[in-house]
Amino acid sequence: MSAPIVFVTDFGTRDTYAAALAAACWRVDPGLSALAGMHGVPPGDVLAGAYHAKALARALPPGAVLCAVVDPGVGTSRGAVAVEAGGLRCVAPDNGLLSYIWAEADPATRRCVGLPTPAEASATFHGRDLFAPAAARLAGGASLQELGTPRGEPVARDDAFAACAADAVEGLVCVVDHFGNAITTVREVDLRGRRVAAVTWQDGETRAFVRTYADIPDGACAALLGSAGHLEIAAPRGPAAEAGGPSPGAPVRVALLP
Amino acid sequence: MSAPIVFVTDFGTRDTYAAALAAACWRVDPGLSALAGMHGVPPGDVLAGAYHAKALARALPPGAVLCAVVDPGVGTSRGAVAVEAGGLRCVAPDNGLLSYIWAEADPATRRCVGLPTPAEASATFHGRDLFAPAAARLAGGASLQELGTPRGEPVARDDAFAACAADAVEGLVCVVDHFGNAITTVREVDLRGRRVAAVTWQDGETRAFVRTYADIPDGACAALLGSAGHLEIAAPRGPAAEAGGPSPGAPVRVALLP
Amino acid sequence: MSAPIVFVTDFGTRDTYAAALAAACWRVDPGLSALAGMHGVPPGDVLAGAYHAKALARALPPGAVLCAVVDPGVGTSRGAVAVEAGGLRCVAPDNGLLSYIWAEADPATRRCVGLPTPAEASATFHGRDLFAPAAARLAGGASLQELGTPRGEPVARDDAFAACAADAVEGLVCVVDHFGNAITTVREVDLRGRRVAAVTWQDGETRAFVRTYADIPDGACAALLGSAGHLEIAAPRGPAAEAGGPSPGAPVRVALLP
Repeated sequence: MSAPIVFVTDFGTRDTYAAALAAACWRVDPGLSALAGMHGVPPGDVLAGAYHAKALARALPPGAVLCAVVDPGVGTSRGAVAVEAGGLRCVAPDNGLLSYIWAEADPATRRCVGLPTPAEASATFHGRDLFAPAAARLAGGASLQELGTPRGEPVARDDAFAACAADAVEGLVCVVDHFGNAITTVREVDLRGRRVAAVTWQDGETRAFVRTYADIPDGACAALLGSAGHLEIAAPRGPAAEAGGPSPGAPVRVALLP
Repeated sequence: MSAPIVFVTDFGTRDTYAAALAAACWRVDPGLSALAGMHGVPPGDVLAGAYHAKALARALPPGAVLCAVVDPGVGTSRGAVAVEAGGLRCVAPDNGLLSYIWAEADPATRRCVGLPTPAEASATFHGRDLFAPAAARLAGGASLQELGTPRGEPVARDDAFAACAADAVEGLVCVVDHFGNAITTVREVDLRGRRVAAVTWQDGETRAFVRTYADIPDGACAALLGSAGHLEIAAPRGPAAEAGGPSPGAPVRVALLP
Repeated sequence: MSAPIVFVTDFGTRDTYAAALAAACWRVDPGLSALAGMHGVPPGDVLAGAYHAKALARALPPGAVLCAVVDPGVGTSRGAVAVEAGGLRCVAPDNGLLSYIWAEADPATRRCVGLPTPAEASATFHGRDLFAPAAARLAGGASLQELGTPRGEPVARDDAFAACAADAVEGLVCVVDHFGNAITTVREVDLRGRRVAAVTWQDGETRAFVRTYADIPDGACAALLGSAGHLEIAAPRGPAAEAGGPSPGAPVRVALLP
């Protein structure tokens, strides 16, 4: 039985780009059927893609394959990688999309190979011509080494990681989700063992740190740890930004109690 | 062979919440592959979710599993249920999402169990941590009793059911679909054996009752029974609301001929 | 093993119409699991649907089944067809949706049958009641002849094909994709062996003909051949229309060098 494959892309739902990934997998093996994906990363937003890739990775069973494609540099000399990390296998352009997945995996479990571009690949759609076929081969049992040449670690995005000091953690809003929650680059691990005094952003702050959405007091934003372990700012109902919360990309500071 | 699973949620397509449901199913059984879903219920709109769950249920083969998650009360003490009704098995928060599916099934086919929350569940994402795993277990052959404790009927939403009198049926617009058709809570069964005189709403009415969209006269709204057996108001082209039709949530009255 | 099925529809992601197609396939065979699709064709836009159907067809393996439903005439006397063309099998309303797939396939590989409407079909949802079940039967091994009666070629849309003269090719923008690229009806085959002097539209032009998106000069639109072999006008970042590119539906003229 082949392994499940999930896609994380910025292809949207208006075109056939997303469905073409499934089709390209079926060209490798028409029996591949455990396929799922999300295609709603904002166009070209590699940092948001890195968050979403990680969020989905946490839900996957060991052995699954994640195919992440947010690829503004398609057709240029940017590299392409296949990675093993924490029991998961991933393929992606080498632009930082795997920043969290790589950094958060046990180093002993991590390997990376460079993927060659097939001679017949188009210049504009490596999702279909390179990444999905590589994912399908991994799902069908190919090893990382059969796909490419061992190399060093993939590109990491600095802005994916909050700056941690003794009195504060500073990050930014990397994703605003469908419910309007402002998800930040500040992670549970950045706060471990510390207590939050306040979360502040350019024109607002909250001192309410709650467990779930229904606990948010009326009329104000609150902070909580979301389902992927990142700090988010949420409003009681509807988008945080409409209740004074931070905008997409806004810097966010978490002041810590001594 | 495991049974198909379909999801009905308000998770949208911008995040990995929907794909995480598939991933959570694969954690139970990586061979589950007959998965489909819709994730476009307006955020937190349980009544719209109840309509969509029913609409999809009608298309499913016997034995399929429906996993419905519109769950503004996630992480609170709201219950969770697994239900058998009319040959379908469903899991959902106990907030009225299954109102139509339960009410419209032959009572002799109906059973309900309460689902416990797993100890390791997050506070914010029971779709991934509770409902999808339960659906996967049902799809793999588990019985309702293996999942939870028998209990009484699930919560029903009163506003899902139109008020039927001798001369009129009164409901409301519960869904505006992708084509702009205003779908109401008035059902074929509410009108059975009666003839419609007029359909009225706050600032408009139609006396045209047609069979399909192409029969709608130019320049006006008409009423028809849609593919899930609910009365809808549609315009010849484009959204009904732009042609004088009712808004989302608007009360709608169907006057009946004597 | 059954063949993969892909859907191309204008059903959107807000309703259960798309998921009901999968459900209808499972009523024919609950083991069908290689299903994918795109549901983002603009409502009722058959020309855009024809482009998307072709774009996805190019990615599919031989033997796959494409189920295309953009069907403003549902419930009227418009015909329904199943087609074999170039190793692919397709079902669709007979309204021009298969214009490109039929025209671009080797004539020796092409066959067409008319599909009868099942007696129990609803008046408003032939995707669920006619097309998906037909696709499922093809995927399960049924022949074209088992589904319907041989007939002549399906309806073709004239506007799908650019007018080719000695000095110019004239088409129109048939799709604006998720990234804002304006995709035209001018195809690689229309330009074969010729060199492009300029691409012009009502209020703009470009003389830049590039290989991939990253090659587009800053501050201007450029033309390129997209991943489905159609000429498109793209901006360096974001929607072409915001950088002076053509609007949806706009006529586009490609002037050729002598």
